[in-house]
Amino acid sequence: MPQLHDLAATRLAVSTVIFALRPDHTGQPVLWTPLVRRTREPYRGLWALPGGWLPPNEELEAASARTLRATTGLAPKYLEQLYTFGEVDRSPDARVVSVVYWALVQSDEAARATAGPNVRWVPADTPPELAFDHDRIVEYALWRLRTKVEYTEIAHAFLGETFTLAELREVYEAVLQRRLDPANFRRAMVASGRLRETGERVAGAPHRPPKLYRYDTAALASEGREPFLRERPAS
Amino acid sequence: MPQLHDLAATRLAVSTVIFALRPDHTGQPVLWTPLVRRTREPYRGLWALPGGWLPPNEELEAASARTLRATTGLAPKYLEQLYTFGEVDRSPDARVVSVVYWALVQSDEAARATAGPNVRWVPADTPPELAFDHDRIVEYALWRLRTKVEYTEIAHAFLGETFTLAELREVYEAVLQRRLDPANFRRAMVASGRLRETGERVAGAPHRPPKLYRYDTAALASEGREPFLRERPAS
Repeated sequence: MPQLHDLAATRLAVSTVIFALRPDHTGQPVLWTPLVRRTREPYRGLWALPGGWLPPNEELEAASARTLRATTGLAPKYLEQLYTFGEVDRSPDARVVSVVYWALVQSDEAARATAGPNVRWVPADTPPELAFDHDRIVEYALWRLRTKVEYTEIAHAFLGETFTLAELREVYEAVLQRRLDPANFRRAMVASGRLRETGERVAGAPHRPPKLYRYDTAALASEGREPFLRERPAS
Repeated sequence: MPQLHDLAATRLAVSTVIFALRPDHTGQPVLWTPLVRRTREPYRGLWALPGGWLPPNEELEAASARTLRATTGLAPKYLEQLYTFGEVDRSPDARVVSVVYWALVQSDEAARATAGPNVRWVPADTPPELAFDHDRIVEYALWRLRTKVEYTEIAHAFLGETFTLAELREVYEAVLQRRLDPANFRRAMVASGRLRETGERVAGAPHRPPKLYRYDTAALASEGREPFLRERPAS
């Protein structure tokens, strides 16, 4: 049975993976994630996920939101717990168990995020060398996103309330990293029963402006949404 | 910024939710879960999930497996991380963050589990009063199981390598808590492409013995299995 002074040797941290869609160097939208440069050892100077220690009186999700806001200025509408990484040797100095949250933000929110020498957005699939096991964490978050986009409204988080089918397809293409046939995509989306036409069309577009859609919240509500996924007030 | 002596006030625990199918008082299979009676404060005398503190040199999953084996004698083929519960006030004495694992075991393994005054299997949907927030943890695990059974081979974990369609339907009925039409169920399972006929039939059955099926592992492999879900050696 471990003694209490042994238990105190293990420290708890919270980190956050944020994804947003932004154009790559060819103008094609791909997944980006913000990183923060470490200013202390270990791994001083390397890039890492936004995060920090868990204070004893702060909820896990609140710690994720606070450290994210402090470093990047981002305040996603919701954060979801991703996974807890606790390998014995993942940090060189001490046993650190990290509870990781993740969220998706819209491109305009990402564009308003803090910029500076110690914050940098990178393409999520090709990050620079990362501190600790953060490369593995980003990889796992990408896997989860790619699995989840197939059966949830997760693409919604990247878009506004209303969107065109072309915009929605662009989200799927960026997440799944493959081209989708526009006609097949349209058929699959209409057949899913998740989309509703808003009756509006894109304003200011040339002749035959594309239709605007929104997600059918009633259809989505029946899909067994994560019960601990709370909407967070915007701040 | 919290100081290190503050961080040491937070303790890490690991708990495990195990589900098995066993008959209820009417003989109908339902989900059961094993509980352990607490022999120390807080909540002394109440029932709780198997678990314990995380020693600094033990992996999270190994701590789950060890505490589970020590209390119930169970050694599931795999454990999967479920969720980390860390509410500030979930334990009366200290801040305790619990990383929770879960697994499914087959009925014969459940039947071989340790029995004794301090271990008790209870129907998972109607547990007795539980220590800490363990009722919420069991509820969340049930929600995850019920969501997951719709799109993964999770039912497999309750059955042997081969099974009849009636046995598989019984698993779905117990997990989803509703009756399924046998003909519709058969059609949906065949259409899923996940099952293969073994060519064998149930031995010793009267005339027209039912066919035995197995899961098609190639079809399942393409379904985006949880990358951190490792097969554990039987012990």
